[in-house]
Amino acid sequence: MSHPHPELGPPPKLPEGGLRVTPLGGLGEIGRNMTVLEYGGRLLIVDCGVLFPEEEQPGIDLILPDFSSIRDRLDDIEGIVLTHGHEDHIGGVPYLLREKPDIPLIGSKLTLALLEAKLQEHRIRPYTLQVKEGHRERIGPFDCEFVSVNHSIPDALAVAVRTPAGMVVHTGDFKMDQLPLDGRLTDLRAFARLGEEGIDLLLSDSTNAEVPGFVAPEREISGVLRQVFARAEKRIIVASFASHVHRIQQIVDAAHEHGRRIAFVGRSMVRNMGIARDLGYLRVPAGLVVDVKTLDDLPDHEVVLVCTGSQGEPMAALSRMANRDHQIRIVEGDTVILASSLIPGNENAVYRVINGLTRWGANVVHKGNAKVHVSGHASAGELLYFYNICQPRNLMPVHGEWRHLRANAELGAMTGVPAERIVIAEDGVAVDLVDGKAKIAGKVQAGYVYVDGLSVGDVTESSLKDRRILGDEGFISVLLVVDTSTGKIVSGPSIHSRGSGIEDSDFATVIPKINEVLARSAQDGVVEAHQLQQLVRRTVGKWVSDTYRRRPMIMPVVMEV
Amino acid sequence: MSHPHPELGPPPKLPEGGLRVTPLGGLGEIGRNMTVLEYGGRLLIVDCGVLFPEEEQPGIDLILPDFSSIRDRLDDIEGIVLTHGHEDHIGGVPYLLREKPDIPLIGSKLTLALLEAKLQEHRIRPYTLQVKEGHRERIGPFDCEFVSVNHSIPDALAVAVRTPAGMVVHTGDFKMDQLPLDGRLTDLRAFARLGEEGIDLLLSDSTNAEVPGFVAPEREISGVLRQVFARAEKRIIVASFASHVHRIQQIVDAAHEHGRRIAFVGRSMVRNMGIARDLGYLRVPAGLVVDVKTLDDLPDHEVVLVCTGSQGEPMAALSRMANRDHQIRIVEGDTVILASSLIPGNENAVYRVINGLTRWGANVVHKGNAKVHVSGHASAGELLYFYNICQPRNLMPVHGEWRHLRANAELGAMTGVPAERIVIAEDGVAVDLVDGKAKIAGKVQAGYVYVDGLSVGDVTESSLKDRRILGDEGFISVLLVVDTSTGKIVSGPSIHSRGSGIEDSDFATVIPKINEVLARSAQDGVVEAHQLQQLVRRTVGKWVSDTYRRRPMIMPVVMEV
Repeated sequence: MSHPHPELGPPPKLPEGGLRVTPLGGLGEIGRNMTVLEYGGRLLIVDCGVLFPEEEQPGIDLILPDFSSIRDRLDDIEGIVLTHGHEDHIGGVPYLLREKPDIPLIGSKLTLALLEAKLQEHRIRPYTLQVKEGHRERIGPFDCEFVSVNHSIPDALAVAVRTPAGMVVHTGDFKMDQLPLDGRLTDLRAFARLGEEGIDLLLSDSTNAEVPGFVAPEREISGVLRQVFARAEKRIIVASFASHVHRIQQIVDAAHEHGRRIAFVGRSMVRNMGIARDLGYLRVPAGLVVDVKTLDDLPDHEVVLVCTGSQGEPMAALSRMANRDHQIRIVEGDTVILASSLIPGNENAVYRVINGLTRWGANVVHKGNAKVHVSGHASAGELLYFYNICQPRNLMPVHGEWRHLRANAELGAMTGVPAERIVIAEDGVAVDLVDGKAKIAGKVQAGYVYVDGLSVGDVTESSLKDRRILGDEGFISVLLVVDTSTGKIVSGPSIHSRGSGIEDSDFATVIPKINEVLARSAQDGVVEAHQLQQLVRRTVGKWVSDTYRRRPMIMPVVMEV
Repeated sequence: MSHPHPELGPPPKLPEGGLRVTPLGGLGEIGRNMTVLEYGGRLLIVDCGVLFPEEEQPGIDLILPDFSSIRDRLDDIEGIVLTHGHEDHIGGVPYLLREKPDIPLIGSKLTLALLEAKLQEHRIRPYTLQVKEGHRERIGPFDCEFVSVNHSIPDALAVAVRTPAGMVVHTGDFKMDQLPLDGRLTDLRAFARLGEEGIDLLLSDSTNAEVPGFVAPEREISGVLRQVFARAEKRIIVASFASHVHRIQQIVDAAHEHGRRIAFVGRSMVRNMGIARDLGYLRVPAGLVVDVKTLDDLPDHEVVLVCTGSQGEPMAALSRMANRDHQIRIVEGDTVILASSLIPGNENAVYRVINGLTRWGANVVHKGNAKVHVSGHASAGELLYFYNICQPRNLMPVHGEWRHLRANAELGAMTGVPAERIVIAEDGVAVDLVDGKAKIAGKVQAGYVYVDGLSVGDVTESSLKDRRILGDEGFISVLLVVDTSTGKIVSGPSIHSRGSGIEDSDFATVIPKINEVLARSAQDGVVEAHQLQQLVRRTVGKWVSDTYRRRPMIMPVVMEV
């Protein structure tokens, strides 16, 4: 298996007749999926998603792929294929379209509907091409065939891209539920046919490659939901993802069977379920869905609320219910179901919500104590089937952290893909398919681009480093007004601190030290503000470290009069 | 089941002949376990541990129980019973002994040895009473019997405390491994005898009450370790907890079988394994353990390194290896085993380490892909056995978040403890055992006490709130020197920012606004520094919000000349 060398340089010009695949996101992380295909000077993009920040990126709203490697080639882009409607696949599109609004968007009906609703909020009206499984479309030099795949959102597609350099298949996100709720299977017959023709390079979802065995069918959840509904004596509140139409369908069905009405709560849930209903992806018996405002007129045992917040998001309805900060007041006997995954990193937030709800007397059903969630990504057992059917000539795991990519590569090797034909790449690594062999060619810029408030890219790693120090230790500001002609203090030092845990009055003991140091430096003729600031920083820093064993940020400012 | 009312007042004086149980930590959280028993005006403390901070407590080193409810009664304390040597049970002792160094410490041989090593670092020489299972000791009015329990550290004890008010049994942390590595079982025959006599109040470990079934025996891990050792061709690096003597014993045994030597890495690992060896808890064949410095002389396939860092702690050896920031450089083919739990909240840090190690070519074996860890706490199946054997007259779940306490209470109810005899308490809630019935009596202060650097309690919730704002948004400081006689600006505004993502040069657009506002206020005769600061804060805050949609902390300082 080939790995990128840590000090890989920029890739050379793509050889004539070759195809280049450059992931700009999704390799080395779960999220911001984006892959650029290049052939004959033209580009095709597959997905353009966002990554949600972790603790290491404090205060950040979203993380985008870095578009800088394609910024001067926007006119070469033939289109963006969107494999499905999840945020980590479509969430970056508004930001790319800001740079060129007329790039065509290609996707299935539901995917485009969800994306268009999002673009409307950004006041962008896109050019779109709606496709479905079985369709074949020529997009510039890229001959694209779309194949149905099963995932945790309806209408997901894989795409097979034929060029004279060979055929590249990108799975998007997928699993292989053999009893899907909507009957729409991952089309293994189509993949078998593509395999017979010859898949030169397979880009395949790695998210669950470490997980042994097979994902249980989505429909198994309905039995668990039925049991919970049968036992519930008061209200039922379900939290799930606003895009998980099949999960919500099962809640709708359970509510209908048990004589309950449903109200959707929260902007994204209401919007997406409206779209899914209008387009026929969510089937709701007449009169079953009611407005949340009318719930007070119903007895508790006839109520189901469906909301977001299953990841413990502090502003979502569920967190606010847990904190008694929402019009819906949890009482003894309410049942709350978290019908969703628990995304790593959200554990503390989610457990805080579960504890809060439990404290008010709710019976909380979640992944940890009942089978109310199945994953949307193929596990190791499914991937083995998939590789044996596709028999790709080259394999490049996508969508995963390093541990997932490597586990996926090993599955490919077990099914007989030759080790030298397996490429573990990472964000920015250009992989060239030349003469039927995939090889790492170099690396382009692919760092994190941060969205914070209105701006994109203003907040840099250095700001985040400052935030981490400030967040851990707080700061101390030391202000002095100095007469530059003499170096003598005219006013100050005035010392203020936030977050350091040191009271302003405690600084009385360091002020004489500062005065002493500056008096000495004035004698020595040091009068330059920058030098004085350094002296102050050192003096205060040493005092804090000796006295408190802490390291707050120290901000000395010497003003001159 | 009784729950504490959110607005519970302080408890009344304990009725004559009654026993009061007040948890000061460990109920509502996993950690800082501490319970105060009171009878006849005298106090007995069971455990005094620390809690490790989460994301919500940035920059904090440790969280202690709040001692304020016992601070003016230190002379009433007969002793502190330590159930076992984990940090969340003994880590707070040095801080309590700082307030009164001669409180006797009661515990088993290993527990006291680990605690004394810790106290030595704090330069405290304690008074101790070493006990073991089967011992019965009168400690003031408290007649204590010690019972062996099995846990993830050797030599753990439960304690049965007899007073004229009745018998209280505190399990400490325990599970019921029926094939323990050292043959030392949770002594169900002793618990049966206590149950026959009559357990008036049982305080029982809730950590795993939500987990169905039974914990697998610790010794099952050895089979998995053997397989990993058999396959490993180069070095093996094992990360585990520095106190998990039985886990390390199995690694020692596997290394011995496979002709490898072991080096312990890291201060706590070296210290604790030294203690465990000296006291006979860890059995090591002569010559097997070598100094880490001599490893270079051995071929890779004869090396095992045992270190800490299994929770992704950034300064621990394992994280530094993952970042190539450690003398041990991970290379293709090294095997790394994380033989430990993954404590909720540490997922991102641990996966970051696994990804880093994988990227350098290591084969990483962890809980997620192999059975290299079993829990130290009884699961639901074990707790049912335990309650059926003890048949307590009153039950009070301890050691857990709300969700765990409630799940444990439900297990008790299933085995026949009457619902009105089950008390779900939380930190600070005083539970009185009077006339054989346990009842919530009131609530004492039991908030978090933060250790940050050298100080205890200086850093308050308000400092943490500032840190969270600073960490998410950064700050902007605005400095002005004003002539107080006229209200006119003599120097400034000088604006500096860190962490806001706004460049200092971008403030050029807000400076005229500040000047304008202050010129107007000078005309109106507003010259007081505090009022001017408010004006500056409002002006800059509105500008930042309008321009960037962000909310950094704004620190205006007006100095007067």
